[in-house]
Order: sequence, then C-alpha cells, then structure tokens
Amino acid sequence: MLYITKKMVFSASHRLYNPLLSDEENFILFDKCSNPSGHGHNYTLEVTVNGEVQEKTGYVIDMKKLKYIIKKEIIDKVDHKNLNSDVDFLIGVNPTVENLVLSFWKMLENKISNGRLYKMRLYETDSSFVDYYGNEKI
Amino acid sequence: MLYITKKMVFSASHRLYNPLLSDEENFILFDKCSNPSGHGHNYTLEVTVNGEVQEKTGYVIDMKKLKYIIKKEIIDKVDHKNLNSDVDFLIGVNPTVENLVLSFWKMLENKISNGRLYKMRLYETDSSFVDYYGNEKI
Amino acid sequence: MLYITKKMVFSASHRLYNPLLSDEENFILFDKCSNPSGHGHNYTLEVTVNGEVQEKTGYVIDMKKLKYIIKKEIIDKVDHKNLNSDVDFLIGVNPTVENLVLSFWKMLENKISNGRLYKMRLYETDSSFVDYYGNEKI
Amino acid sequence: MLYITKKMVFSASHRLYNPLLSDEENFILFDKCSNPSGHGHNYTLEVTVNGEVQEKTGYVIDMKKLKYIIKKEIIDKVDHKNLNSDVDFLIGVNPTVENLVLSFWKMLENKISNGRLYKMRLYETDSSFVDYYGNEKI
Amino acid sequence: MLYITKKMVFSASHRLYNPLLSDEENFILFDKCSNPSGHGHNYTLEVTVNGEVQEKTGYVIDMKKLKYIIKKEIIDKVDHKNLNSDVDFLIGVNPTVENLVLSFWKMLENKISNGRLYKMRLYETDSSFVDYYGNEKI
Amino acid sequence: MLYITKKMVFSASHRLYNPLLSDEENFILFDKCSNPSGHGHNYTLEVTVNGEVQEKTGYVIDMKKLKYIIKKEIIDKVDHKNLNSDVDFLIGVNPTVENLVLSFWKMLENKISNGRLYKMRLYETDSSFVDYYGNEKI
Repeated sequence: MLYITKKMVFSASHRLYNPLLSDEENFILFDKCSNPSGHGHNYTLEVTVNGEVQEKTGYVIDMKKLKYIIKKEIIDKVDHKNLNSDVDFLIGVNPTVENLVLSFWKMLENKISNGRLYKMRLYETDSSFVDYYGNEKI
Repeated sequence: MLYITKKMVFSASHRLYNPLLSDEENFILFDKCSNPSGHGHNYTLEVTVNGEVQEKTGYVIDMKKLKYIIKKEIIDKVDHKNLNSDVDFLIGVNPTVENLVLSFWKMLENKISNGRLYKMRLYETDSSFVDYYGNEKI
Repeated sequence: MLYITKKMVFSASHRLYNPLLSDEENFILFDKCSNPSGHGHNYTLEVTVNGEVQEKTGYVIDMKKLKYIIKKEIIDKVDHKNLNSDVDFLIGVNPTVENLVLSFWKMLENKISNGRLYKMRLYETDSSFVDYYGNEKI
Repeated sequence: MLYITKKMVFSASHRLYNPLLSDEENFILFDKCSNPSGHGHNYTLEVTVNGEVQEKTGYVIDMKKLKYIIKKEIIDKVDHKNLNSDVDFLIGVNPTVENLVLSFWKMLENKISNGRLYKMRLYETDSSFVDYYGNEKI
Repeated sequence: MLYITKKMVFSASHRLYNPLLSDEENFILFDKCSNPSGHGHNYTLEVTVNGEVQEKTGYVIDMKKLKYIIKKEIIDKVDHKNLNSDVDFLIGVNPTVENLVLSFWKMLENKISNGRLYKMRLYETDSSFVDYYGNEKI
Repeated sequence: MLYITKKMVFSASHRLYNPLLSDEENFILFDKCSNPSGHGHNYTLEVTVNGEVQEKTGYVIDMKKLKYIIKKEIIDKVDHKNLNSDVDFLIGVNPTVENLVLSFWKMLENKISNGRLYKMRLYETDSSFVDYYGNEKI
C-alpha cells in the first residue's frame, strides 16, 4: 500500500459568517474573519490517494490524471472566486477551512478510479491547515 | 552600507477593475481577476531599509521597530480587508500588485527614522511578485 | 473527525548534555551538539488538535484561540531563551528535540478546551524533526 | 513512542519505461515522462524512524547517525546518477516515484539499529510525493 | 519604474561535458556532474520585466501574458527533456546553469512587448542559482 | 557578467550586548535579544560571486569549490558555536546580523579565485535578513 499526494493551489475570497446569528454575534465569534466585504487567501490543497502499485505502469495513479481530476472537480470551481457567493457546491456553507475540506472531499470521493481517496490537507495560510480522512478513522 | 529586510504577511481580497471601462472591457483586460465578487491572496511584503551600522547598537535599524512600523502603517490597515472598499489609502486605486506596492511605499517612506526606505517587494502568490525602489533608479 | 494544525516559531539556544557523564563522554555522545557554550536554532512547532466541526462556528477550534494557547503555554516561555537554564519546565531535561516535544506536550495537554491534543511536530532545522502523539498509539 | 525524521536531497535523471511494451505504448502510458533521452529531478527523501527515547542520550536515534546511514545506503548510490542505468539495486525497475520508494525501503529496512524504520516519503517535485510505511498497515 | 517577476519550474536531465576534452579531463573538471548517462534537476526560472505602470490596466505587464510567453519560448522546449540532446537552441552548449541562463535570455529578449526584460534567475537546486541582467551592467 | 549564488546553513547561539553599557541599558536597547544566557538561530548564508563565464568549463566558478571555500572559511568556524565566545574572528563583535555579515565578508573577500565576491545575504530567521555588497555602491 502506497500513498500518493498531489499539491495544487488556488486563490479565493471568503467571509466567515453564520446567517443564524446577528452581525454582532458573528463578529464576536469570527472577529476580523467576519469582515462584511471579505478577505482572501492563497489556499494549498493536498490530495492523497492510496492503493497498490500496478505492475504495468509502476503507478498507483498517474499524477497527471490525478492533477486533472482535482483541477476539474475542485480548482476550476473555486479559483479566483468568492467562496460565499460564487461556488454552487458551497452555497449555504460557512467557508471555514474545516467546512471547505469537508465539501471538497464530497466532490472528489467518487471520482478516483485508481486507488482510493485517503486524505485531504487544506492550507489557508503557511501556518494554518486542516487534515481530513473521510468518515473512517485513520 | 547595509540593506536590512523584514518580511510580513497579510490576507486580503480584491477585484481588478477599471471604473472607466465597461464590465466587458474589464473582463477582457483582467479575465478571472475581474470576477465581480472578488477573490483573494495571502500577500507577503518585504521591506528593505539601508544605512550604516550604528556603533552603539550594531543595528542599521532595530528589526523589532521596523516590524512595528510596517505593522502599524500597512499590515493593520490591509489584513483581512477588501482592498477595493475597506482601505482609506486605496480608495480609487485598481489593486494590482503594482499599484499596491506604489501605495504602500507612500505610506512608509517618511516613517523610517534610522536608515532610508530602499526597496519593497510584494508577493501576490509564491510565483508572482513586484519590486519597487522609489522614484530613484537603482 | 478533522485535524487542525497551527504552526509557530521560536528561537532558542541549547547544549546537549547528560550530567551523569563526563564532559569527554558527553562529547563522544553528542559531538558538536555538546559544545559547552551552546549553540541554537529557529525551532518550528506544529500543534494538531482533532475533533468534530461545531455547527455554530464551522470550527473544530478557533485558530486564533489555539495560537493564543500555544503562545501563552509554550512560545512565550522558550522564545529567545537558553533551554538548559532559563525555562522552569525544562530544568533537568537534556534538551534534545525528542525531550523538548515530550515536555511541550505536558504543558499543553490539559489546556485544549475544544477538541483533543492529537499531535506535535517540532522542527530543529528544516531537515530534522520529531513527531509525538501522546502515550496512545496512532 | 516518538517519530524522528531526517530529510535529504539528491539529483538524478530517469525515464519511465516498461520494456514489455512498445515505444508507442510507453508514450501513451507515460507521455513526456517517457522521453527516450530522459529528464530529471531534485528528489527529496524523508526517512522516519520510531522508537522510545533512550534515557542516556535523550535520543531515539542520533540524527547524525541516521543521516550517515541514509547517505551511505541510498544517497551516495543515486545522487547525480541515471536511475535507469547506473544504480545496481534499480536495474530492471521502472523508476516511478512509487517503485523508487519501494526499492529504497529494502535498502534501509535492516540498517536501522536504534528504533525501527517507520515511514519513507519521496518528493519528485515540490507538488508530488509518495509515502510508504512498509508492508504493515498504519 | 517597477520590476515584475514570474517564477516557473521545469524538470530536465543534463551532463556537464566539454567535447574538446577527454572523458578523463571532463571528469576532473566536472566530477559527478559529468556522469556519462547524466543526472537531472527540478529547475526554477524567475523572469523579471521592468517598466512603468500603465494607467489603463495598473499593470507593467499582464502576469498571465508573461507566463504564457515564458511557457511558449522556454518551458515547453526544455521541460521533461535532456538538455544535451533534445533542445534545438541548446545544441553544442555545455548545459551549466550559467550557459542555460545565457541561452534562455536570447530566447526571450525580443519577445516582451510591455516593459523590458531586466533579469533572469535560474535555480538548479534550492541552494544554487545564477542571475543574469543581459549585457548591460546593473 | 553573471552572478552565481550558493546558499549554506549553520546553527549558532548569540546574545546582543554592548559591553560599554550597563545590563539595564543593554536590555532597553536589545530587549529579549539581550537575554544573559543567550538564544540562537538557524542562519542561512547566501554568497554571490560575479564574473564572466569561462569557455572551457561553462562556469563562472565551480559551485562545489565555492561551497568548499564558504564551508572552510565561515561555516566550520561558526556552526554549533556560541558567536559571543567561541569564534576567533568575532571576539569583541556584538553579533547582530549586520555585524556578522560584515565579519563574514572580511573572511571571504580574498579567498575567491574565480570571479569576485559580489554580495552576501544572511538570514537570521525566515523573515529577517541583511544584504551587504562590500564597500562599493551597487
């Protein structure tokens, strides 16, 4: 069993906001992250697929195909976008880094043909990131 | 003559937009960077001050003081903000990385007491940045 | 279950030294790391907390709070210090990167209110680091 | 139980190629990675050893010894080499990043005296890497 | 006057070799870099263009256009190639990092329509790089 | 004219201290950097040599030779040392990053046989560094 990871980047804006709360309560919860006109980040997404090496190719999964799938299913939909308003699969989602990775997982989990989607890591900044392994424990 | 550099980061959203042009013309010029609801970046700002070493301190300028000045004059005003709408000194500025560094320079050029502001470098992403040395040639 | 990580840095000096051994034996064991007047590093500490996403906030734990806790319990006590002599909770500890992470774990394990302290990674240099998951196996 | 990691780099050339297939089939499978005269990378290898801290040293394993073992068993044999033709233990191996890490694992698994070889990570580029934990599940 | 830089990467193999010298003399000059079957690197190329900001766009040069030009004129011709044998404009060139940057400069110097090609930096590894400013002094 | 740079690292401890001042005055000037038992850093030193490309080698200077010279003249003397007490050529020097680079320059300026020592950059942390070009203006 090997674990193959591809790293990709995108740039987006967002505002942390719970619509069930008042603006004041949102500001108490999220502070400057709840600035009404938003702010943004260069996000880095790492996607890990695990599986056995195929004898014919020496690959678990072709990195170029993995890159294409991530680009098509996620990056093209979020890059240079406002994550609160512009992305179909994020409508109604408070775009914390935790909620983003949960939403990205759903977009990708049935799209990997060689190997199995094992892990996603999403960096919001160089010093803050989240890991998700799906519903299963590690 | 020594050149001292301090690097700091901030996260902001922006939209590239020339108000003298139609939305269509803006989209031709700026493509996805002109997305109406904006996008964002983790910016990295490097500020370089040059001068002679002071015998008493062994410093050109105290890095802690330089950091404090950059934070007060720039970072606190742009971090977790929308650069099109939230920042006084950027009102009316099309927030390209070039125009941002020109505006940041004006905010800082009279605030350095030890040494002279020599250079600013602003990264919009890890692979795109701009350098500015003020009006003088290198 | 999600895993949230915050990365922070500090600068400190140390000397590897076992007081039960002679200086010669220490030098055989630790070589240049046992230089009597010490040496130092920029350490990078990554703290990972795991837990469920809270519906109200979309957070496992607020990164700003996590940062504050790490700063208060660890960084403020070790930054710009000599790890052999200046830090209460390290007195009597041979400050290898392994022993440091064990001591840092004890300082933090009861201080996380949202989620559970899951992992610490401590970099001594860009090319050397240690991971610790507490007493439990992964 | 602690996990100690040492990171090292090497530069090598390779060509992805399955000798049981025609050149055309290889090109379909591997595209530009199958360029007949090869291409190359700066690889980064991370080796993780786990074990208990030794009371005498405060080490799981001396990083300098771990570095020496990795250098002797792997780096010196692959650095500035052609991975298809120049390396004894890679003859007959299609040098994908997956197959490389499997071969490197065999070279090192019986060479660690303190602790146990736990994990290898091999970066082919900054954005593509593979993890291997030996035959055992995590 | 502003200086805009775009960073791009490519992976290639090469062998340092002077055909006017014997293999032995080449080995004395270039050591392991003259390995007959070659080795390789992930190169990073930074291209800097300088000029005035255009009022209409706020750009010196559109980064997307600069990226397209570098990709078309250089990256597409050298990525996943053997620099000794596969690249038309490098035939007869001993592919040291110095000679590569001189050759890349020639490929690009007449291709920049907004601004002027000011500088190229080429990294062979993370710790080795060369800068070139064309024939003019800085 | 080309500019060749080699990057190397070392780990050292230091205390900022002016012996002509009282401990209290030192603390006012240098704050936590004047901690009596010191602190430390992983320093990164970049050395740039400029010159013409030699026809025989395609080199300005052989990177391996440049690395050897920097290691012999600087790194071996400061790595894993206390910069206040352990280094002959730093005795009496207040080891700010500015004073360190001035002292390192003197150690290297007559040791480069191919090309000319053009620039030194010394990083104290990832976000703080100093550049020096010798006595001449750029």
